[in-house]
Amino acid sequence: MKLAKRCELELPNWVLPFVAEWKQPLDTVDQRMALAVALSGANIDRKTGGPFGALVYDEQGGRLLSVGVNVVTQAGMSLAHAEMVALSLAQAGLADWNLDAAGRVQLVSSCEPCAMCFGAVPWSGVRGLVWGARRQDAEECGFDEGNKPVDWRESLERRGIATRADIRREDAVDVLKRYVHSDGAIYHPESKRS
Amino acid sequence: MKLAKRCELELPNWVLPFVAEWKQPLDTVDQRMALAVALSGANIDRKTGGPFGALVYDEQGGRLLSVGVNVVTQAGMSLAHAEMVALSLAQAGLADWNLDAAGRVQLVSSCEPCAMCFGAVPWSGVRGLVWGARRQDAEECGFDEGNKPVDWRESLERRGIATRADIRREDAVDVLKRYVHSDGAIYHPESKRS
Repeated sequence: MKLAKRCELELPNWVLPFVAEWKQPLDTVDQRMALAVALSGANIDRKTGGPFGALVYDEQGGRLLSVGVNVVTQAGMSLAHAEMVALSLAQAGLADWNLDAAGRVQLVSSCEPCAMCFGAVPWSGVRGLVWGARRQDAEECGFDEGNKPVDWRESLERRGIATRADIRREDAVDVLKRYVHSDGAIYHPESKRS
Repeated sequence: MKLAKRCELELPNWVLPFVAEWKQPLDTVDQRMALAVALSGANIDRKTGGPFGALVYDEQGGRLLSVGVNVVTQAGMSLAHAEMVALSLAQAGLADWNLDAAGRVQLVSSCEPCAMCFGAVPWSGVRGLVWGARRQDAEECGFDEGNKPVDWRESLERRGIATRADIRREDAVDVLKRYVHSDGAIYHPESKRS
């Protein structure tokens, strides 16, 4: 077997035009979450991935740095959660793996991060993490959030990363439920094993 | 600012020729670790990233599926740890995010996974995780391993992912020490904040 040398994370074609047409302000955390949740909903409407959306915002400069949606099945990469896509695209746009160099940068996600995305947050240089739906909301819909430390949220705070939960939680949960009721695939290896 | 639509994970140019010239067998875990550790050492000799190497191996089919090295600084992506690169390239080679579909697949890493890579393991479909250097070895050299659950190893076993530690640990630690003694950059956001 020939070994692969490269792979790509790419947003579905609809995403950047969708963001360009988003005329609402992004000045507040609530406004930013409205976009993240709208991305999660559009991702299932367009059938390009799971019901998760995220964005990276520079609070100091007042500018959107990137957006992400879950593209695990489309990209064929298990790491392609919305948060990982948004973080990587923000770093690509700035040509710097350390987002802290760009200002005071916040990751906004429609759902509480899974164990992988939680672990990725400190390495990215963001100073803030905001989420909508809670872990239990995702799990009630059948998603696996993985194993995080009991004090995962405090561990981020100790690293200087401010956290805020429950922003537009109901809107975010509505998208999760809509996905499950539409028989959206809950993909994870275990489900194929049993 | 124009938002990025895509980004790429790519191995340094020396890696695949290095693997092609590796004539030693990969039949045992110890033999596979020898290659992972050799990749970690070559990555610092070539100055293409941090002292970490990994590979993905199909134990059922007896075939190497991918290799990875840490390319955080070269790729400009904080997620580009050796394990994430190896998992993603194995998935790219197989055109499937679920490695469990390919056989009985093992991730071999020169070092115990950080919090992010630990969280990524269950999503990838691997059935085994093997590492060389321990967390404490990496931390003694100044690396930040992040916050994992106290029972992180057992949590993988509960998911049907077999774990093995301390494979060629001394060889792996030698590379970590060699990197630090050569004044290799320990990159993480906190170090730039202080």
